[in-house]
Amino acid sequence: MKITLNSPLDMHVHLRQDEMLRQVAPLSAEHFAGGVIMPNLVPPVNSVERLLWYTDEVRSAVAPHTFEPYMTLFFRNYTETELLAAKPHMLGIKLYPAGATTNSEAGVQEITAMDHMYSMMQELDIPLLVHGETHGFVMDREREFCEIYRYLAERYPRLRITMEHITTAESVRLLDEFENLHATVTLHHLVITLDDVVGGLMDPHLFCKPIAKRPEDRLALLEAALSAHPKLMLGSDSAPHPIDRKECPGCAAGVFTAPILLPLLAELYDRHGALDKLQAFVSNNAQRIYRITPPPKSVELERTPMTIPQRYGNVVPMWAGKEISWSVVSTTLP
Amino acid sequence: MKITLNSPLDMHVHLRQDEMLRQVAPLSAEHFAGGVIMPNLVPPVNSVERLLWYTDEVRSAVAPHTFEPYMTLFFRNYTETELLAAKPHMLGIKLYPAGATTNSEAGVQEITAMDHMYSMMQELDIPLLVHGETHGFVMDREREFCEIYRYLAERYPRLRITMEHITTAESVRLLDEFENLHATVTLHHLVITLDDVVGGLMDPHLFCKPIAKRPEDRLALLEAALSAHPKLMLGSDSAPHPIDRKECPGCAAGVFTAPILLPLLAELYDRHGALDKLQAFVSNNAQRIYRITPPPKSVELERTPMTIPQRYGNVVPMWAGKEISWSVVSTTLP
Repeated sequence: MKITLNSPLDMHVHLRQDEMLRQVAPLSAEHFAGGVIMPNLVPPVNSVERLLWYTDEVRSAVAPHTFEPYMTLFFRNYTETELLAAKPHMLGIKLYPAGATTNSEAGVQEITAMDHMYSMMQELDIPLLVHGETHGFVMDREREFCEIYRYLAERYPRLRITMEHITTAESVRLLDEFENLHATVTLHHLVITLDDVVGGLMDPHLFCKPIAKRPEDRLALLEAALSAHPKLMLGSDSAPHPIDRKECPGCAAGVFTAPILLPLLAELYDRHGALDKLQAFVSNNAQRIYRITPPPKSVELERTPMTIPQRYGNVVPMWAGKEISWSVVSTTLP
Repeated sequence: MKITLNSPLDMHVHLRQDEMLRQVAPLSAEHFAGGVIMPNLVPPVNSVERLLWYTDEVRSAVAPHTFEPYMTLFFRNYTETELLAAKPHMLGIKLYPAGATTNSEAGVQEITAMDHMYSMMQELDIPLLVHGETHGFVMDREREFCEIYRYLAERYPRLRITMEHITTAESVRLLDEFENLHATVTLHHLVITLDDVVGGLMDPHLFCKPIAKRPEDRLALLEAALSAHPKLMLGSDSAPHPIDRKECPGCAAGVFTAPILLPLLAELYDRHGALDKLQAFVSNNAQRIYRITPPPKSVELERTPMTIPQRYGNVVPMWAGKEISWSVVSTTLP
């Protein structure tokens, strides 16, 4: 059994900087034709200068692979001049509503303070990518944020909004409520729940934000992904941390999946008899939603077992050491 | 500000065996007049011989402190002869329903298979101590188990049942539904929620079973404890693990609180203006419920800051390094 994926895209990936960038970027670039590069560096990518600098850094790190980095700016109060200067060099702007609270009314108020920004982004046709969590109780943060998604989607009907790394059944339902709402979903939220994080022994390598939710949430996400819901895209949120930041008392949030995404997705879609839907989920939907044409790249996978490595450098991947039933056999450029 | 506690009791504590026992037992014995010693060793304490052996082990480990170990047997299918032989040497029998499932009907069926045991225990007046969780989704396990508590409490109205380490508002409500239901609650479930475990950075030292629940659950537990609900007792579930079993990929469940229970409880009750209720919560309720008379021991605490040690041997306590406002100043025997 084989499958060929054309120009797979990872629409939400953390490549970091410096040594970690050079370590992980080639792993994404090996299997993917492009990806949306998140801007939360320290300091963040929040100016045209930083954007151009980071683009160069990423391009250097992925060379000689063919891989298009779709860059993002960190949301702040930009001028129209800044937005116009940045627009040709990026896919969109990433919003993390830092001050949103359990009180969703207050959250909306904080959001409304930036109305002029969304308005400008709508007029300039710059997509808004959102980490949609309030600061409420960990299992409620995304659900509480849905009210803010509704506010934005209704008030800015021509603003293309991506709900990043959705984790709940309610977010899946939102996709069908508003024409201008899209979403990414990670691989790990398709296969784990909170049970896998803290239901048996506690697993720091499955600890992420948003936290994995309930079984019924996972099922709703999986159903949408397996049916290649036209508004849903793969966005791995692959987030490498050195092992000593994971296996420690204050464990950092993030699951590292970049190098195993495609084999695990092939296994998952194969198991559910949905391999014919995988191309849309890993590329076509994103191309249509963002109106992008990634570089041509064919990735061939086959049902041949592989064992997930224990480490990639100093980073432990999800399910390290586990045998899975699919592998990447070749990557072909035209 | 000072307070004197008479014969405080920890009605649910894991003292382990061998080296760990010798390390942690004196820490409980220093502040408490007695405690309920959990029987889940490897192999478990599931015979009169094991019970007598473990009693001796605990007594040796706590010497020369005055500390009465209230021993428990691990639930299995005992004969009446065995129960009669064990009864003088123990407080009750601890049940962990290993096969209970998400399907609570199946859970009840598994429980009903042991009806003859509960019946004998009721006739012999041997209390049943229960770890009340199904094998369902981690946030639902205790709630699902409530049906089994109801079954047991209704069918065996003279069987004294303790819901161990309750973590939900629903379990608090059960206390008032059935005359023969009692409960222990840990210190940590009075002060943390799932947010403290995985809401920020992930904290393995706050990872425990049952997992900490929602804010409204914590509030219900706290309210019951601060009002010294007559059917609620302190049971710390203090569960030491070596640091290398906590700060690792498959982190063991358990929070180590034994040596800091009384100062933290004094701080908590003081902050809520409820210091006058602490004596009932840490001793009198348990004495009445179990009809026990612990050895006399006065523990004096005062509002003087202390810093929680980073380690007790190779064990990291809850909130290591944190300054708290109360300390134990003296322990007096008559």
